[in-house]
Amino acid sequence: MIVVKVGGSEGINLDTLCEDLASLTQEGQNWILVHGGSHQTNLIAEKLGHPPRFVTSPSGYTSRHTDRQTLEIFEMVYCGQINKGIVERLQKLGINAIGLSGIDGRIWQGPRKEAIRVVENGRTRILRDNLTGIVKEVNTSLLANLLEGGYYPVLTPPAISTKGEAINVDGDRAAGATAVALQADTLLLLSNIPGLLKDFPDESSLITHVKESEIESISDYAKGRMKMKVLGAKEAMKGGVKRVIIGDARNPNPVRDALAGKGTVFE
Amino acid sequence: MIVVKVGGSEGINLDTLCEDLASLTQEGQNWILVHGGSHQTNLIAEKLGHPPRFVTSPSGYTSRHTDRQTLEIFEMVYCGQINKGIVERLQKLGINAIGLSGIDGRIWQGPRKEAIRVVENGRTRILRDNLTGIVKEVNTSLLANLLEGGYYPVLTPPAISTKGEAINVDGDRAAGATAVALQADTLLLLSNIPGLLKDFPDESSLITHVKESEIESISDYAKGRMKMKVLGAKEAMKGGVKRVIIGDARNPNPVRDALAGKGTVFE
Repeated sequence: MIVVKVGGSEGINLDTLCEDLASLTQEGQNWILVHGGSHQTNLIAEKLGHPPRFVTSPSGYTSRHTDRQTLEIFEMVYCGQINKGIVERLQKLGINAIGLSGIDGRIWQGPRKEAIRVVENGRTRILRDNLTGIVKEVNTSLLANLLEGGYYPVLTPPAISTKGEAINVDGDRAAGATAVALQADTLLLLSNIPGLLKDFPDESSLITHVKESEIESISDYAKGRMKMKVLGAKEAMKGGVKRVIIGDARNPNPVRDALAGKGTVFE
Repeated sequence: MIVVKVGGSEGINLDTLCEDLASLTQEGQNWILVHGGSHQTNLIAEKLGHPPRFVTSPSGYTSRHTDRQTLEIFEMVYCGQINKGIVERLQKLGINAIGLSGIDGRIWQGPRKEAIRVVENGRTRILRDNLTGIVKEVNTSLLANLLEGGYYPVLTPPAISTKGEAINVDGDRAAGATAVALQADTLLLLSNIPGLLKDFPDESSLITHVKESEIESISDYAKGRMKMKVLGAKEAMKGGVKRVIIGDARNPNPVRDALAGKGTVFE
């Protein structure tokens, strides 16, 4: 079992990703796909007159400021347009995909962060209208049941809070939590860069291997969204996932390439 | 087992619908919910610069002209915003809802209409870019499996064609096909009118009872979107569903009221 997370940044080709997954499926590979949709959400949010805002935590992690209106736009793009687009691609390739968000059947559950600290213009302030949280429980019985029935889950945020609210969660970390809960041996975090770069954005500075003991020391190289990926990788390793690969979804065979070790391999 | 279809027209209160369903669930009622989203889709399509278009068949049935861009907007609203909004409402009420479109797990499958005849300004022409079809097969094993596991399905178009394309299908007829396939005893078609009116839009002209033998003769009273509901009711009755009620989703207890016979009862 592998868990594949594909990001939602510009330049990612979902057609080749789905073709690669479909051909691996025919070889007997079992998988769960988790996807993002940030770039498309930004575009639609602009068009709908509610432009995206991002906040940065005191420790430097950037995330989407998710007020109620943003959450609904987010759901439109992630759960509607992108999720169903991926399911349709896979269905055309003969794979019986089933698209679900983390709120469906409480697949991803966890606490909402009632208040978060963010840094703005050098000042720390408290944000209370942010519908975000973290995945603490994965409904493995539902996922295992679907996989047994021959269905391939295509998962997307939001998750659901313990009070039943839809909450935005980081997709990389949610994919990591899913890999841990399902005891997957491999987690792939695919995006629009070759992997973790020592000297971002110089793609020739790719870090190819990271031992578990080295994760803390290499974390400083991670900038922007890569910080979440490294955190996701760290949490997955800690939870027992043997290999995590941060790979490039722009490759023609993004899943096979990552499985073959192309990217930054944590093991 | 009942199948409840709630429309997507203006004035429908999804909060009271979900509260009504949740309280019935606590009394042991099993159900599947099917929903629409036409009004909201029109609003979003306008905002995104791709205004809705409707076509009318030679026999007078009106439907959305669903080109590829419309389909993606349709999926954003139906599968994203509305489906997840309903699932979240139900989850907050303690119901483990699971939102799925007809393409997920091939829940609703059928042929795409490659070409349809439409009437425009009195002239008939052929439309070929229309991604629409009709539900011929329902994945009852997946739905039964979910219901057995304690999950309540919240279903929405699109369906999937035999070639794996997402296709827009009429929600009332899809709900009817689902009721037939699951051998539900009752199908509720709830919308923003009291039922079938003899003299539309005079709400005091409600037709309260229709025997199966009378369906053809009362069909002439159905105008606009009501034509599809009567067709859905007819197909469901023909398929063995004992009672179909076209009821009012604006009522405070829309499901209970319809079950109690408020609306137009076909039996």
